Amino acid sequence: MNTLHVIKIGGNIIDDPAQLERFLTDFSAVPGNKILVHGGGKIATKLAQDLGIESELIEGRRVTDAESLKVVAMVYAGLINKNIVAGLQKLNCNAIGLAGADGNIIRAKKRPLKTIADGREIDYGFVGDLDDSSVDAQAIYKLVQAGFTPVFSAITHDGNGQLLNTNADTIASVIAVAMSGLYDTSLVYCFEKSGVLRDVNDESSLIKDITAEEYKELKKEGVIHSGMIPKLDNAFEAIGKGLSEVYIGRADALPTLKDKSFGTRLKSEK
Amino acid sequence: MNTLHVIKIGGNIIDDPAQLERFLTDFSAVPGNKILVHGGGKIATKLAQDLGIESELIEGRRVTDAESLKVVAMVYAGLINKNIVAGLQKLNCNAIGLAGADGNIIRAKKRPLKTIADGREIDYGFVGDLDDSSVDAQAIYKLVQAGFTPVFSAITHDGNGQLLNTNADTIASVIAVAMSGLYDTSLVYCFEKSGVLRDVNDESSLIKDITAEEYKELKKEGVIHSGMIPKLDNAFEAIGKGLSEVYIGRADALPTLKDKSFGTRLKSEK
Repeated sequence: MNTLHVIKIGGNIIDDPAQLERFLTDFSAVPGNKILVHGGGKIATKLAQDLGIESELIEGRRVTDAESLKVVAMVYAGLINKNIVAGLQKLNCNAIGLAGADGNIIRAKKRPLKTIADGREIDYGFVGDLDDSSVDAQAIYKLVQAGFTPVFSAITHDGNGQLLNTNADTIASVIAVAMSGLYDTSLVYCFEKSGVLRDVNDESSLIKDITAEEYKELKKEGVIHSGMIPKLDNAFEAIGKGLSEVYIGRADALPTLKDKSFGTRLKSEK
Repeated sequence: MNTLHVIKIGGNIIDDPAQLERFLTDFSAVPGNKILVHGGGKIATKLAQDLGIESELIEGRRVTDAESLKVVAMVYAGLINKNIVAGLQKLNCNAIGLAGADGNIIRAKKRPLKTIADGREIDYGFVGDLDDSSVDAQAIYKLVQAGFTPVFSAITHDGNGQLLNTNADTIASVIAVAMSGLYDTSLVYCFEKSGVLRDVNDESSLIKDITAEEYKELKKEGVIHSGMIPKLDNAFEAIGKGLSEVYIGRADALPTLKDKSFGTRLKSEK
């Protein structure tokens, strides 16, 4: 099987033009088939503020009302996505920018009302949740085989005309799992740290390789904690569903991906 | 050769949700291959106003400075394009939303400085002009053959990382001409009137068919004047470059396209 890298970048890179330019250069040099998934960054928050749109946070999750949805659709699927595509085209990477509605590639379900700790029923608004049947792998396959490099913003749709705001980490993971039947697929998360660290304050304490078994041990020992746990839980779940490998590391280390020494590599047991 | 319709809608339809919904229903029912090109409408103007961005008009042409470009990229390529795509997907039309940077499909040239009547040198800013080599017909062909219905916003790029604002009428015409070597291609302009009228105040005075020769006569007689002239000049130029037919008419008459009775049909001499 041919290889495919699904690479996700977050807002920290998008918000910094110099970092973004460096990342796009490194991304365009990744050999083989690849897909980029990008998050949002601070531009949408700033635009919403400038327009006087107040977005509510409930238990750390942002509520996407109709006006906030317009803002994220504009910023993620328009401004950021098209600038990334134009930047990649400059580097002779034949990018094609997509939201989940395009080609019906990512069909999400609007998040149902949720009862939180204090008994309140919360409507997170126009937020889309994904499952293993959300992605049309054949549609992506057609684009990749036609020579395009898909670049996804974190906007999906419900198939009934409604756009939805969706977590970019989840989009990357669900796409990678869906594509793993067609390509030898690796999922690559770029974030602020060098990878999974034994000591969160010491970048040199990087754990280079980790299996699910070892991860369980490190969680038990309290070495891996807080914010890393949901990230790694998701990543190991994706590995269980057919992915070859998941990498977590700093975007500026992307050139080391080709010799498989990027950040922390999460592996299946074998 | 298979048929292809390149259909352009303007801001008047986009600004009216009921008209837009009707149009999308009619568009999705057009038989054979099709491409949609959409203009912008008043949403971008309103957003620029809300953000306090003043855009200058010189001789009726809007200057697109860096801030205005961000606004049109957000609104055209993000908000409007993705909502149209989601609306078409609801109707089982497999739309894929694109800006010119996507797949390097429309590469424009930034408009050069222009000396106007009073001797001033005018910089129209981030505006992209097109010529007969701007469109990659093979890239569009691949998407159409893969079963996608391309939906273009009026945002292009220069190939060097810069997005550019481009006239949607011109995009539609240049795409149609480029595709005419691969499909039996018709270009369809939807606008406010039923078509070319003998009396601009009388919708029943519609001219059903017109050749370039007849157009010249009607121009000479003063029957066709003012705003219609650049539109028709462009349309007849496109016919001269290989298009089968150009239609001009009201969006709500789109169902009549299948029996070739939509609005005014511009034909080559034969």
